Amino acid sequence: MTKHLKGTAASDGIGIAPVYLMTKPDLSFAKQRISDPLAEIKRFKDALAAVQDDLSRLKKQASSRMGKEDLAIFDVHIEILNDPEMFNQVVTRVRSQRINAETAFEEVISRVIREFTAMTGNKYMQERATDFANIRDQVLAKLEGKALPNLQALDHPVIVVAHMIGPSDTSQMNAKYVKGIVTEVGGKTSHAAIMARSLRIPAIVGCPGITKRVHNDEDVIMNGFTGEVIANPTTTEVDHYQAIANRFAAERLQWQQLVNAPSVTKDGRQFVISANIGSSNDLPAVLQNGADEVGLFRTEFLYMKSEHLPTEEEQFNAYKTAVTGLQGKTLTVRTLDIGGDKPLTFMPLPHEMNPFLGYRAIRISLNRPKMFKEQLRALIRASAYGPINIMFPMITTLDELRQAKRIYHSELSHLQKQQPGLGNQIKIGIMIEVPLAALYAERLAEEVDFFSIGTNDLIQYCFAADRGNTSVSYLYQPLNPPFLKLIHHIIVSGHHHQTSVAMCGEMAGDRRALPLLIGMGLDEYSMSASSILRTRSMMSNLDSEACHQLYQRAVTECETAPEVEQLVDQWLKQQ
Amino acid sequence: MTKHLKGTAASDGIGIAPVYLMTKPDLSFAKQRISDPLAEIKRFKDALAAVQDDLSRLKKQASSRMGKEDLAIFDVHIEILNDPEMFNQVVTRVRSQRINAETAFEEVISRVIREFTAMTGNKYMQERATDFANIRDQVLAKLEGKALPNLQALDHPVIVVAHMIGPSDTSQMNAKYVKGIVTEVGGKTSHAAIMARSLRIPAIVGCPGITKRVHNDEDVIMNGFTGEVIANPTTTEVDHYQAIANRFAAERLQWQQLVNAPSVTKDGRQFVISANIGSSNDLPAVLQNGADEVGLFRTEFLYMKSEHLPTEEEQFNAYKTAVTGLQGKTLTVRTLDIGGDKPLTFMPLPHEMNPFLGYRAIRISLNRPKMFKEQLRALIRASAYGPINIMFPMITTLDELRQAKRIYHSELSHLQKQQPGLGNQIKIGIMIEVPLAALYAERLAEEVDFFSIGTNDLIQYCFAADRGNTSVSYLYQPLNPPFLKLIHHIIVSGHHHQTSVAMCGEMAGDRRALPLLIGMGLDEYSMSASSILRTRSMMSNLDSEACHQLYQRAVTECETAPEVEQLVDQWLKQQ
Repeated sequence: MTKHLKGTAASDGIGIAPVYLMTKPDLSFAKQRISDPLAEIKRFKDALAAVQDDLSRLKKQASSRMGKEDLAIFDVHIEILNDPEMFNQVVTRVRSQRINAETAFEEVISRVIREFTAMTGNKYMQERATDFANIRDQVLAKLEGKALPNLQALDHPVIVVAHMIGPSDTSQMNAKYVKGIVTEVGGKTSHAAIMARSLRIPAIVGCPGITKRVHNDEDVIMNGFTGEVIANPTTTEVDHYQAIANRFAAERLQWQQLVNAPSVTKDGRQFVISANIGSSNDLPAVLQNGADEVGLFRTEFLYMKSEHLPTEEEQFNAYKTAVTGLQGKTLTVRTLDIGGDKPLTFMPLPHEMNPFLGYRAIRISLNRPKMFKEQLRALIRASAYGPINIMFPMITTLDELRQAKRIYHSELSHLQKQQPGLGNQIKIGIMIEVPLAALYAERLAEEVDFFSIGTNDLIQYCFAADRGNTSVSYLYQPLNPPFLKLIHHIIVSGHHHQTSVAMCGEMAGDRRALPLLIGMGLDEYSMSASSILRTRSMMSNLDSEACHQLYQRAVTECETAPEVEQLVDQWLKQQ
Repeated sequence: MTKHLKGTAASDGIGIAPVYLMTKPDLSFAKQRISDPLAEIKRFKDALAAVQDDLSRLKKQASSRMGKEDLAIFDVHIEILNDPEMFNQVVTRVRSQRINAETAFEEVISRVIREFTAMTGNKYMQERATDFANIRDQVLAKLEGKALPNLQALDHPVIVVAHMIGPSDTSQMNAKYVKGIVTEVGGKTSHAAIMARSLRIPAIVGCPGITKRVHNDEDVIMNGFTGEVIANPTTTEVDHYQAIANRFAAERLQWQQLVNAPSVTKDGRQFVISANIGSSNDLPAVLQNGADEVGLFRTEFLYMKSEHLPTEEEQFNAYKTAVTGLQGKTLTVRTLDIGGDKPLTFMPLPHEMNPFLGYRAIRISLNRPKMFKEQLRALIRASAYGPINIMFPMITTLDELRQAKRIYHSELSHLQKQQPGLGNQIKIGIMIEVPLAALYAERLAEEVDFFSIGTNDLIQYCFAADRGNTSVSYLYQPLNPPFLKLIHHIIVSGHHHQTSVAMCGEMAGDRRALPLLIGMGLDEYSMSASSILRTRSMMSNLDSEACHQLYQRAVTECETAPEVEQLVDQWLKQQ
C-alpha cells in the first residue's frame, strides 16, 4: 500500500529509487568462555585483516572523487586498527580470561572510547572517539559475520534513508548512486542538508519515523521541493513525479546558460550573487557556477587543519592562491571565526557551557592581537594580487569595531611604509550576526564599507535557538515577520550611509526568501556555489518592484512565519 | 605598602576588615607502602570521625540561620561519609595492597566522582560529584593534618577573598562576620553577586589576581560602590572610607522609614517596586522590605527540589501559601522555566551543546501539555485566595503565545464550569527575554495584559554572551545605547496597547539604570527584596521629566555603554 510521509524540504529535486536503509544491525553479543584461545586469536586477527582490506579498497575507490585531506580519514582508521597495544591487550585478555574475542575487544576499545568521550571540552578528542566507535562497529560486525551499511559499496541508484547523516557518512558516499536523502532528524542548516545542496542531491530532513516506516529496497519517491515522501507509489504517481524531475533536469540545463550572465532582475536591476567557500579547493566550483564574487571565505579551516598557528607566510600564500585563482573577482575574507563549535588543536580554549554564547571569533582576535595582526598583514599583502575585502565576524559593540579597525589601520600603515599604496583598495566590513549589531546598524554603517548579514547566527540568537538542536529546530524561522523587518532595517541603515549590504547565511540561497530580499534591496547574495545558477535564473524572472510590494505585504498582512511562507508560495505560483 | 586593585562593583557598601583567604591548602600526597595496616585503618577511621564531628557541629550552628531544606546538605555529606561500601573498599585496599590510607581513599572516592562527573547531561549527578569532592577534601585534610577554609567557623569580622564563590560556600557562610566579599571571577549576575546583594554584604567580583595579591589577615578596604580594593590602607584611607560606610549605614536606616511608603518620584509619579522570589520562604523578606507586589515567583524551585513531578495538589498548596502570605499583594507567577542550566531529577532532558539556546521554559511546557495544564490549574485554583498573575517565559513567536493562551483558556473554562468566575481576575503576561519577542513587542502587546522584561536573558541573547562565562562578561552591557532603545521600544509598544511593562532582571535594581528606566516610563521594577528600599528611596529623589531628558541624552549623545555610565554618574551627582 502506498504510504505518504512528510518532512522538511532541504535540497531541491525529485528522487525516485529503492530505499537504502542506513540502519546499523544489532551488534550485541554474549560474553562466552572459550576453550581454544589460539583459534579465538586467529578469529580476531582475521576480522582485523578483513576490516583493513575493506578500508584499503574503499580508500582506493574514493581516491578519484575525494581530496587528499578527506582521504586521510582512512589512514586514521587503519592506524587505529593496527595499534599494537590494543591488539596485545585483547590477546592477553582472550588468553588469560579465556573469553571470546568480541568480549575482549569490546572491553579494550570501549575504555579508549570512554576516555576520549570524557574530554567533553575538546571537539577534536570527541571526533577521535567517533573514529574508534566506527572501528569498533566494523570489527564487531566482521566477528559476528554481519554487514554494516556502506555507502561506498553502492552499485545501483538508491534513496538513502537514515536517522541522521554526519560528515563521516557523507565522506564515504558515492554520490553517483545516491538519488535522494531522507533523514529522521536535522533541520535546513544541518550537515546533511548543506551537503546535499552542495552535491545537488534532493534531500528531506526531519521526517520522523522514516527508518521504521520504509524497508530496504522498497520503492520511494521523495520530493525535495516540498518534503513529501511516497513509499510504494502507484505508477501514476511515478509518472507524475518523473515528469517533474524531467522538467527540473531541463531547468538545470538552462541554468548552465547563465554561467557568464549578469545577476539581474526582469526589470534590469543588477545585484551580486557570490559564493561561500572554505578553501582554495572550492575555487573550481566558484568559477564553474559563475559566481560574481566570493562573498565569504572562511579562514578558520586554514587554522583547524593545521597542527600549529599558521604563520603569516602560510596565510599570505593561502590568500594569494585564492585571490589569484579568482581571476579578478573579489574575495571577501572573514577573519578567524573559531571558538563556539570550532576548536583548534594548538590553542586550547576554555570549556564553555554555551559555546555559541562564548569566547569566539573577533572576541578571540581582539584578545590575541599578535595572532590577529598576522592574519591582517597576510591579507593586506595578498591584496596586491587581486581585490580583497576583509570582514570581522561577531562584532557586537561599537567599541569592538573601533578596536578592530585601529589594529587594522596600524598594520596597514606599517606595511605601506615599505610599499606605498598597498591595501588601498581593501574594503572593510563586518558580519551582522549578533542582534545588538543589527539593532545598531544605523551607527555601525558609518564605520564600514559593507555589511554581510550572517543569518544562521543572527536567527539563532534572535530566536534563542541553537540551529544544531533538533528540539528547537522549529524556531529556525527566517521568514518570521519581525525578523524580516530586522533584515530590512539592516539594509536600509546600510544604504543610508552608502554601505553595501550582503547576506551570507543559508537564507541568501533560500528560494522563498529571494523575492523578499530583492524587495528589501539586499545588494549581494552569497551562498553555496551549487545554488548560484538556480538563484540567478530565478532572479531573472522576478520584477524588483513587485518583490518590494511582496515584502510590504509579508510584514503587514502576515504575523507568523507559516503565513509568510504561504503568501510567498502563492505569489511565486503567479509569477 | 598600600596596594590598589580594581574589580567590578557587585553589591553596595564599604567593607573594612582583615582578609580571610578562601584558598584550599595543597592536599597532594605520596603513595606510600605501610607496614601496619591496622594502625592505618585506625588513622582512616579517626579522620572520618573527625569530619563527622565537624559536620554535626556545623549543622547545629547553622540550624538557627538556615532553612530545613538547606540544612539537608549536611545529612547528605554525613551519609556519604558513613557509606559502608566505600569504607570496606578502602580498608580492603589498605590491607591487601599495604598502601597508606590517603592513597586507598583517594582511589575509591575518585572513581565515584568520575562516574558522577561523566553524566554530563545530568546536573543533579554533577552536584553529587561536588558533594563527594567536598568530602574527599575534608577527609584528606584530616589525614594530612591540614585545615580547610571554613566560612562557618568564622568568629571575627573578615573580608572573604576567593577565586569564586558558589552556592555550597554561601550556604555555609556565617554572614554575621562577613563584612565584604571579593572574588577573582564572576560578573554582576554571578551567584556570588546576587547572594551578596540579598544578604546586603558589600561585594566586588571579577578582581583578577586578588587571591595572590593579598594575604591572610592583611587589612583591606573594599568599596562595593566602585569596585576598588585597597590592601594595607593608610589610616587616612581607613578614616575616609569609614565615614562613607557610616553615611551609608545612616542611609540604610532612613530607607527603613520607607517600608510602608508608596513608590513615587519627587514629582509624584507612582510606580510599582516589587520582589523576585523563589519560594514561600522568601515571603518575610518581601513584607519586611515593603515590596508593593511580587513581580516574579520562580516556580522551578518547586520542581527542582522534588524527586517527582509535583502534583497539581502540591502546586496548588504552594501557590496558595504564597498568595495568602502576601496579604493582598499581587503574586506574579512565572510558569516552569526549567531546561538550560536548570535540570530536573525526575525528567531527564537531552544533553545540549548550548542549553541557553535549547529546549527550555515554555518550549518544554508546550511540548508537555499535561504537565503545563496541571500547573495552570493549580494557579487558577490558587487565585481564589489572592491576586495572581501568570506569565509565560521564553515566548519567542506569536504562534507559541497563542498556543499557550489556548491551553490556559481551555483549563480556565473547565474549572469555571465547577466554580463560575474563578480566575476571572488573573492577568496573563509574558516575559520579554528573547530578542525576537522584543522586536515584535508591538504585536505581542495586543495579546497580553502585561510584559515583564527579563534583562538577564535578553542581554545575553542580544549580545550573544553567556552571562556565566567570564571570558565574555565584558559584554554584559545593560546601558549600551541600542539596548536601551530596545527596552524603550518594548515599553512604548506595551503602552500603545494598555499593556503594563515590568522588568525583573538584575537591571531593574541597578542604580544607574533606574533614572533611565523611569525616563522610559517603565511601570514596574522587580528585584531582590533587599534592593527595594534603596530603590524606593532613590526614586523619591528623582524627577520623572528630568529622567526622560536623561534617557534622551543617553541614546542621542552616547554611543557606547561606558559613555552612558559616565553620563549617568555625572547626572546623579548633580541630583
